[in-house]
Amino acid sequence: MGGTKVAAGVVDDAQLTDESQQPTDLSGPEALLDEIATAVDRLVDRHGKPAGIGVGLPSQIDFEAGAVVSSVNIPLEGVPVREQLEHRFGVPVVVDNDANCAALAEASVEGVDHLVMLTLGTGVGGGVVIGGKIFRGAHGLGAELGHFPIQADGPECPGNCPGRGCLEALCSGTALERDATEAGSHVPDSELGERYADDGRVSGREAVEAAERGDATALELFDRLGCYLGVGIAGFVNIFGPQRVAVGGGLSRAHGLFFDRAVEEAGRRSLPRLWERTEVRLAQGGAAAGLIGAGVLAQQEFGDTQNPSQMTNEETSGSHR
Amino acid sequence: MGGTKVAAGVVDDAQLTDESQQPTDLSGPEALLDEIATAVDRLVDRHGKPAGIGVGLPSQIDFEAGAVVSSVNIPLEGVPVREQLEHRFGVPVVVDNDANCAALAEASVEGVDHLVMLTLGTGVGGGVVIGGKIFRGAHGLGAELGHFPIQADGPECPGNCPGRGCLEALCSGTALERDATEAGSHVPDSELGERYADDGRVSGREAVEAAERGDATALELFDRLGCYLGVGIAGFVNIFGPQRVAVGGGLSRAHGLFFDRAVEEAGRRSLPRLWERTEVRLAQGGAAAGLIGAGVLAQQEFGDTQNPSQMTNEETSGSHR
Repeated sequence: MGGTKVAAGVVDDAQLTDESQQPTDLSGPEALLDEIATAVDRLVDRHGKPAGIGVGLPSQIDFEAGAVVSSVNIPLEGVPVREQLEHRFGVPVVVDNDANCAALAEASVEGVDHLVMLTLGTGVGGGVVIGGKIFRGAHGLGAELGHFPIQADGPECPGNCPGRGCLEALCSGTALERDATEAGSHVPDSELGERYADDGRVSGREAVEAAERGDATALELFDRLGCYLGVGIAGFVNIFGPQRVAVGGGLSRAHGLFFDRAVEEAGRRSLPRLWERTEVRLAQGGAAAGLIGAGVLAQQEFGDTQNPSQMTNEETSGSHR
Repeated sequence: MGGTKVAAGVVDDAQLTDESQQPTDLSGPEALLDEIATAVDRLVDRHGKPAGIGVGLPSQIDFEAGAVVSSVNIPLEGVPVREQLEHRFGVPVVVDNDANCAALAEASVEGVDHLVMLTLGTGVGGGVVIGGKIFRGAHGLGAELGHFPIQADGPECPGNCPGRGCLEALCSGTALERDATEAGSHVPDSELGERYADDGRVSGREAVEAAERGDATALELFDRLGCYLGVGIAGFVNIFGPQRVAVGGGLSRAHGLFFDRAVEEAGRRSLPRLWERTEVRLAQGGAAAGLIGAGVLAQQEFGDTQNPSQMTNEETSGSHR
């Protein structure tokens, strides 16, 4: 679910085999749950009742309760989504954060069991897969990878976080806008300076465009962003010892501006015996990652997983039986 | 195993019921394995053959192989310790890093399933327990908690780590000595300055003593150490979502100088919904934590764990059947 559309899909063995979309109605919880139901019903009409439904939401989830703890962009805060959807569909439902779902999709599609995924968007999200399962911590509230401080005296974290110098405070779209605006105000003869003169601010998109046209001030911002991202990746390599670190999210579309720098910095700082066993890559899952991950999660929760080597599509389809 | 003694113990249900010590012979691997054997044989004479043996070593361990990857303080680098001890004793053996063992002991003794333990000594070690088990990452090489960078432009990490501003570079005994020596050289009329004038350096112990006598320069070092420790704890709270963070290790004996500051800083920076569910405490395990943890590990690996609720001492004694 995003700010503009609800997407539903049929997932078999980490493959999206059908999809249905519905515009998002953000007027309230009931309207939004209706849109989810419409998108899902369309698939049920085509394929029959699923074995289970997995839901990924851009919200803080209490996994055990299947409820939304907090939600900035969609009006589901406090809503017991699992209970309500189970009531509507009569099948078991599992609800998780969409960054967790994307991480699970990335691990499943790429065939790795231990993965750290960083999602660079407005904020910095992420998910950790350990032994093929989403890691959620003791409280089911997830791994807040964007909120590890990597520069203790750095800028205040822009999200609902009291910290400073967190990855989100240095490598998010919000951080990029803050720094691009500040740079624009200081360097009037740069392209960022021109944008700043126009609007009193510089957007992330404008910063990307300026850098892609070779504006030195903008390029410097991305170099720094890449460096800090590499510092964070080194930390995750050292403490999680993963097989793979995947970098995704909207900001990663501009990866040409910072990804190589991030890998270089991570390699320079990681413990060598762990670094040589880790691959750092751009996320492969693409736009459908959240959908696929929600389906894989449903399959793990409700499919026949007791003997995974003997799985067949019929027995274990992620969201469709 | 430490630099001066080998200790062996009988562990039942996370309790140490007997112990035997032997001076460490560091002349070579064979001599050291003989000392281990002597310490264990004494217990075998008293209690009979154990169900299994757990070994905690102050070394980098490849858990799957049961071998020592690297070892600075004891001469076991490259030695397949599990294989050699299984050959000597004819019972199954499991080998892990001693910080992992201490974390497992702390979790077992305190009855928590999700724990992050930080061990402040010459370096900063640590262990993570997830769902009651030691977390070792994809490669069995462990969670290197001391090597998360928390100040990207901070000092070079003193250990075998190419990073800068890692927890170990800011909160270890080695970092304390570096900073105390530097402070002593800059502030000649402080107690640190007097120590520096005597020896051209200030030891960690001297810094502790100066701070305990109220030397302002020394107190400032511990305030900063506590602050950085709090930054690291906040990061671990945010990404592991543990029930408990435990702080142990030799430097924690001086906890009065920095622990409250660390908890204050961690609380200020952690995500509130995670912080309110986490308890940060000094490690309770004490000197026997490594022994107890190695025993609990052996129990987990070789005891009857299929039905833990029906465990009895006879069925599942950690290292003694």
